[in-house]
Amino acid sequence: MNPVMNQQWLLKARPRRQIAESDFLLVQAPIPEPATGQFLVKLMYLSAAPGVHGNSGNNYTELNTGDVMPGRGVGRVIVSRHPDYQEGDIVQGRFGWQEYAISSASEQDLVHKVRQRKVPVSSALGVLGLNGFSAFLGLVDVGRPLPGDTVLVSGGAGGVGSKVGQIARLLGAGSVIGIAGSKRSCRMMMEEFGYNGAINYRQESVSNQLASLCPQGVDVFFDNSGGAVLDAVLEHINRRARIVLCGRLREKSDKDLEQQRIKNYWALGRLEARMEGFFVYDRKGDFQRAEDQLAQWLVDGKIRYAEDRLEGIEMMPQALQRAVNGRSEGKLVVRIDSEAE
Amino acid sequence: MNPVMNQQWLLKARPRRQIAESDFLLVQAPIPEPATGQFLVKLMYLSAAPGVHGNSGNNYTELNTGDVMPGRGVGRVIVSRHPDYQEGDIVQGRFGWQEYAISSASEQDLVHKVRQRKVPVSSALGVLGLNGFSAFLGLVDVGRPLPGDTVLVSGGAGGVGSKVGQIARLLGAGSVIGIAGSKRSCRMMMEEFGYNGAINYRQESVSNQLASLCPQGVDVFFDNSGGAVLDAVLEHINRRARIVLCGRLREKSDKDLEQQRIKNYWALGRLEARMEGFFVYDRKGDFQRAEDQLAQWLVDGKIRYAEDRLEGIEMMPQALQRAVNGRSEGKLVVRIDSEAE
Repeated sequence: MNPVMNQQWLLKARPRRQIAESDFLLVQAPIPEPATGQFLVKLMYLSAAPGVHGNSGNNYTELNTGDVMPGRGVGRVIVSRHPDYQEGDIVQGRFGWQEYAISSASEQDLVHKVRQRKVPVSSALGVLGLNGFSAFLGLVDVGRPLPGDTVLVSGGAGGVGSKVGQIARLLGAGSVIGIAGSKRSCRMMMEEFGYNGAINYRQESVSNQLASLCPQGVDVFFDNSGGAVLDAVLEHINRRARIVLCGRLREKSDKDLEQQRIKNYWALGRLEARMEGFFVYDRKGDFQRAEDQLAQWLVDGKIRYAEDRLEGIEMMPQALQRAVNGRSEGKLVVRIDSEAE
Repeated sequence: MNPVMNQQWLLKARPRRQIAESDFLLVQAPIPEPATGQFLVKLMYLSAAPGVHGNSGNNYTELNTGDVMPGRGVGRVIVSRHPDYQEGDIVQGRFGWQEYAISSASEQDLVHKVRQRKVPVSSALGVLGLNGFSAFLGLVDVGRPLPGDTVLVSGGAGGVGSKVGQIARLLGAGSVIGIAGSKRSCRMMMEEFGYNGAINYRQESVSNQLASLCPQGVDVFFDNSGGAVLDAVLEHINRRARIVLCGRLREKSDKDLEQQRIKNYWALGRLEARMEGFFVYDRKGDFQRAEDQLAQWLVDGKIRYAEDRLEGIEMMPQALQRAVNGRSEGKLVVRIDSEAE
């Protein structure tokens, strides 16, 4: 390997149902020079996230074969011609699957300067990255739980949901109930993330379980699921309840939408309740506030999170496969720079 | 007729599909004496409203035959043993179909003291009553239109909607578009209520018409309809749009709910938009503010509204029939006290 070259993964073929290593191509390219208004990042960690790269082919429709695979990473600015970024800054952003990336901190790159030095920098791809920021800002700014509230979270063991549940508890919720689709996730919610109750929506009636686990009704619902789960929850909301609909980067398919029809939204009217969307990409101005609080909670040992770390950029396709297939315990990150902490 | 007796309409039989005069019975009863904490109202006007008494039998399930028919009215306090109400006060509330009513101003009665003296007191059953308060408070406090916004109203020619459209214009909306289900309603929206555009959802594609009439998207949607209309609107909302779901006193039937399923609520997430319920019965503390502003607009000739007035308590069943069948031009009120202005 030539140390002055930039290793990058290109998309070679659009993945079909299953992602294959042969869908990607590892190449070496010259390290680019930043132009005015740009900076060069040496990546330390890359994220392998099913949220962006899901396992159906149509997630790749905006990509062309030959493009560098998109994905978030965290690294160090090593050359800067951008007034807001200095050499030595640690930044997270959508830098792609490569060792060196040029960025102009455009809106699309969603670059955030990592200021905390309390916890390992790889956390910038999970609990101190978009997952954590989504959980914190969606719950605090949109869900606005009051002390004593009953807070419900769907996808409660996931990258976002597991933080929502823990943050709700830290904010003084009276009861925190999680919904997930597997026994393992339900066990994790109870044993790892401190939920007061867990509902397996594939095996139980969500409505019946809510009646039993939330006898005082639901005040805040952080929804990562929609559809039948949301419809069941709408039967159990309290006056002035708040439902946080977590926005997705990619659009849902027509089939998804058809299957996720809901009918109980009229409950919002009668109960003066609110269903409000939340799209973390539009809240960049609030990231620092989320990072500060989350980092402090991490240092104080008040939030648990798990990281599943692989070594070397050559592992990226395998890492993505593992993330997509749900076989990882915790946030899947790949260390790109062997000297990174 | 004995002048010291109280004429009242009792429910004699549960109405079937069509309301018949034989469903009601006009009787004479002694005028009751208020106990401590109560007051006696001499009714001036009664409202005939399809909203409460719709034309399907199941609206009457909470009523027993022999009960006084419920309904809102406006009248004068003639005896009071309640600390907050004095003889001579004009009050609107759920006093029932009768000439004299006892009230303790309970939550259910939703009594509001009519303080304005600028426009005729019968307006307390329409534009200065729950219809107007719903329109004003739902739009101003929940929809929160900004100057220049595109405001959309379903049921735009109705008792609530026709006020919403006009208030939106008075608040500086850039464009006000109405949706209704008949040519006549669409014509009224354009000719009487000053809408910039009208959509007939029975004859036109709501989505196509929105694309053409709201090229800049929808900022506020005051929804009296739900279902397919709401789903179409969700395709055209702007970032941070607000959808006001008008709460209803009675629950929807299971069949209604099934037919009104929606699928496009995910747009809320991506666009950080909000769908929020609004139930006028829970906003009593804000009625005075709404009355003050609406009365001023009426005096200034800035809001148009129509009243369809019948004479005499014996007309109540006919008035209700006319209201339910949509044959009235404007708010249907019945003058009970022939000396009322």
